Amino acid sequence: MSPTQTAQLMNGTGLARRIIEETAARAARISQRTNVVPCLATVLVGEDPASVTYVRMKRARCAKAGITSRHVGLPATTTTAELVDTLAALSQDPGVHGILLQHPAGEHIDERTAFEAIAPEKDVDGVTMHSFGAMSFGLPGFVSCTPGGIVRLLDEYDVDPAGRHAVVVGRSAILGKPIGMLLLAEDATVTYCHSRTADLSAVVREADIVIAAVGRPRLIRGEDIKPGAVVIDAGYNPGNTGDVDFDTARSRARLITPVPGGVGPMTIAVLLAQTVDAAARQLGVQGR
Amino acid sequence: MSPTQTAQLMNGTGLARRIIEETAARAARISQRTNVVPCLATVLVGEDPASVTYVRMKRARCAKAGITSRHVGLPATTTTAELVDTLAALSQDPGVHGILLQHPAGEHIDERTAFEAIAPEKDVDGVTMHSFGAMSFGLPGFVSCTPGGIVRLLDEYDVDPAGRHAVVVGRSAILGKPIGMLLLAEDATVTYCHSRTADLSAVVREADIVIAAVGRPRLIRGEDIKPGAVVIDAGYNPGNTGDVDFDTARSRARLITPVPGGVGPMTIAVLLAQTVDAAARQLGVQGR
Repeated sequence: MSPTQTAQLMNGTGLARRIIEETAARAARISQRTNVVPCLATVLVGEDPASVTYVRMKRARCAKAGITSRHVGLPATTTTAELVDTLAALSQDPGVHGILLQHPAGEHIDERTAFEAIAPEKDVDGVTMHSFGAMSFGLPGFVSCTPGGIVRLLDEYDVDPAGRHAVVVGRSAILGKPIGMLLLAEDATVTYCHSRTADLSAVVREADIVIAAVGRPRLIRGEDIKPGAVVIDAGYNPGNTGDVDFDTARSRARLITPVPGGVGPMTIAVLLAQTVDAAARQLGVQGR
Repeated sequence: MSPTQTAQLMNGTGLARRIIEETAARAARISQRTNVVPCLATVLVGEDPASVTYVRMKRARCAKAGITSRHVGLPATTTTAELVDTLAALSQDPGVHGILLQHPAGEHIDERTAFEAIAPEKDVDGVTMHSFGAMSFGLPGFVSCTPGGIVRLLDEYDVDPAGRHAVVVGRSAILGKPIGMLLLAEDATVTYCHSRTADLSAVVREADIVIAAVGRPRLIRGEDIKPGAVVIDAGYNPGNTGDVDFDTARSRARLITPVPGGVGPMTIAVLLAQTVDAAARQLGVQGR
């Protein structure tokens, strides 16, 4: 592909819509067969406006997809122990099929300890160490939602990671690390870069698939993109800005995700799909 | 460093001996204070000669270090469920501080299911998904022993992975994947290569630190080594042959592990050290 050509956009909005429609149909079948409506518990500590908005958005999507959501709002003063108790109780509750703890839980909370209180079979947000291990070892389990969404997007656009060099910029527990492991499981050669990487541009220029997941606006620029590469921008910065400088990157990439409308919508779609998967398993019915 | 210079050898035998001496002193202190001798349970399914030898060697090292070992030999016909029961019982047994399931457990055994029956606090071999998650997220926990040994070797020779490019060849659950995660936690830029990697030599040539962990004799040759690189050969092939072609690699590397006497001895040293760590924690005494 010539470098002057313009990349095809990867339409996450459209794919997410199709996944949610399919998920809604599955939720309806489960509800009909079992008289139980799949249920996602959403747990929010404090009242951070962005977090309140995210949780509201997720609950609204649940409602549209025929998934009940049970919201547990906890005061900002909640301790780690109290949060663990809440999550452990939801893990035991047969009326709850999936559990989402909205991140960030607050500076005084030991978020890892909290996450680990979520039973693996209800970890539909894919945040536990068990889920990370399953992703890493290619075992059944729930994937971290944004990485899971990226894998589905690649698949939708017939990008087979096998034998390709995927460069992941960022190494967070819920995004960078798991997407690298998922791509490794799909036989990509995977490089993890981060703030301590000596020459980021040089490494990114080797990538057939770039995953930007670092949270620094426009860190990756067109000149860093190998002509013909697939560019996935999972960055999320104020003002709807990704980690990739879209305008310069799109003239070199073969495929690129826009921000917004690329990776973003996929995250909720995977969350809903996994909630229905969890309900199907717990209710002992076919999920498909 | 000039490419014609010969690499310094990384003496795993010597470092392992020092770690075991230190571990023996700690085991003695714990035994004295608590009247309980740290205990490692070794579990072996079947009578594969190599596995029998490994287990015998590990038990002999335990004995020298003042660690009791309790051996559980199971017939080759043991089912996964029976093995899980055995491991679960050892996980509950207050007289056992660490558990080692000798790999491979046999073709008819679901080894992952078996590993997961080991309680994380007794997983001194670092094989559970929980331990892998802890390694990956930089949390307290037991490391997979060979990767843990590699990290100690690098530290011993003042190799700081931060900002360096580490290339891991191999992606097994107990070696390749965890060593990559440990190096990433130490701020290396990490690339995972494997059998599907398009141009392995080209990727390895970018490495400041090469970790060969694939089990293919002399796969990595001198011409693949960047002059001045650190070469860790964790390969283990018949005839004491590593994954690195030692004779050609040593003329380009700055530091290199011999086979045998490099990574190999470190694995048991870390196993013993972690067994004493586990005992100290479970007995509620200072482990150092």
